[in-house]
Amino acid sequence: MHRTRVRVVEDALDANNTLARANRDDFDRHGVTVVNLMSAPGAGKTTLLERSLASLQGVRAGVLEGDVKGRVDADRIAALHLPVVQLNTDHGFGGECHLDANMVRSAIPSLPLDELDLLVIENVGNLVCPAEFRVGEDHRIMVSSVAEGEDKPLKYPLMFRACELVIVNKIDLLEHLDFDMEKFDYHLDGVHPGVPRMLVSARTGEGIDEVRDWLVALTTRAGAPA
Amino acid sequence: MHRTRVRVVEDALDANNTLARANRDDFDRHGVTVVNLMSAPGAGKTTLLERSLASLQGVRAGVLEGDVKGRVDADRIAALHLPVVQLNTDHGFGGECHLDANMVRSAIPSLPLDELDLLVIENVGNLVCPAEFRVGEDHRIMVSSVAEGEDKPLKYPLMFRACELVIVNKIDLLEHLDFDMEKFDYHLDGVHPGVPRMLVSARTGEGIDEVRDWLVALTTRAGAPA
Repeated sequence: MHRTRVRVVEDALDANNTLARANRDDFDRHGVTVVNLMSAPGAGKTTLLERSLASLQGVRAGVLEGDVKGRVDADRIAALHLPVVQLNTDHGFGGECHLDANMVRSAIPSLPLDELDLLVIENVGNLVCPAEFRVGEDHRIMVSSVAEGEDKPLKYPLMFRACELVIVNKIDLLEHLDFDMEKFDYHLDGVHPGVPRMLVSARTGEGIDEVRDWLVALTTRAGAPA
Repeated sequence: MHRTRVRVVEDALDANNTLARANRDDFDRHGVTVVNLMSAPGAGKTTLLERSLASLQGVRAGVLEGDVKGRVDADRIAALHLPVVQLNTDHGFGGECHLDANMVRSAIPSLPLDELDLLVIENVGNLVCPAEFRVGEDHRIMVSSVAEGEDKPLKYPLMFRACELVIVNKIDLLEHLDFDMEKFDYHLDGVHPGVPRMLVSARTGEGIDEVRDWLVALTTRAGAPA
């Protein structure tokens, strides 16, 4: 049974990669840099976007919000007067626990690509499957909340390995938690040695400038060979 | 493509239910009450178990730890001198984001069912797929950390609907968060009206007695018609 399942999954991933390349071609043609933003549920992705995208001087940003259900996050982003499209995986996509390239493809006609420099795709909150499905992004960033504990890289290594930046969020809570940052760094280096990490509190704004500068730099690097 | 995938998923769920029934028959034959404990990553399931199982006077408890990778949690439970088996989904099961009945079936021979009254199956941290896969449990409990925010029932309704008890954990952090308990209750009642909820801090021990009493009561109700 499992061998069959593994083959079904591999076929699905192959098909996904083909569609992801098509998405990326579309984004490239419009000169849009695309970030796939991933985390566990409630790690603070949307608050991070509210804070960092509000002050992206000169860079025209848009957001594609992925959720199983609801449009809470899209409404929050829309309040910033940024273009946003909500994609629900329970709407014709079987309630999947991640975005895939086909879902993102279905949303492309609703995105004003000509008017964007940066598109952030906020994935479904999940530390497993989103790391397996490319959606056509140029860059992958993950958010890890200190409230989740320092052992997460050990338990979800693929996610921590798949990203090029780890944003450690909710550091305003550090003094109220038993979180051991040295252990977290040690575990993270064990699965993804030297991956850049930023300490942030999206709630208080601490560290947000650094996130914003990173995002801006990604757009100015766009078009350069990968 | 999606119609095919939905059929593959439906077939997989049918096969899963058949195996879940076989697991449950095995558990019933040994008089073991089984709880499927679910949550997002880092919501505090293991700390909750450390606290509540340590003082289960008279009830013989064991734990099946589900993780994509690693045995951090199993080591923590073993320190309590309770029988514990670690099940890794990346070990022959394709790194799945949830436990299924077949995985649990593979662990049954390693479990001392004759010596247990209560088996807690700690699922992979994930608010989506674990709710879809029965593993042979009698009861489903979920843990929602206040650090995740009050909008989670809106975004992951199936998980909040699938369980018969919601443990709201990390309430020691409430004074440092913007979490609105009334809104959480409102959203939760919207997807699962009236489901019992317990306010707990596994870290400080607040509310743990209530969890322990609930678990003990489940074992004494075992054998009664569902």
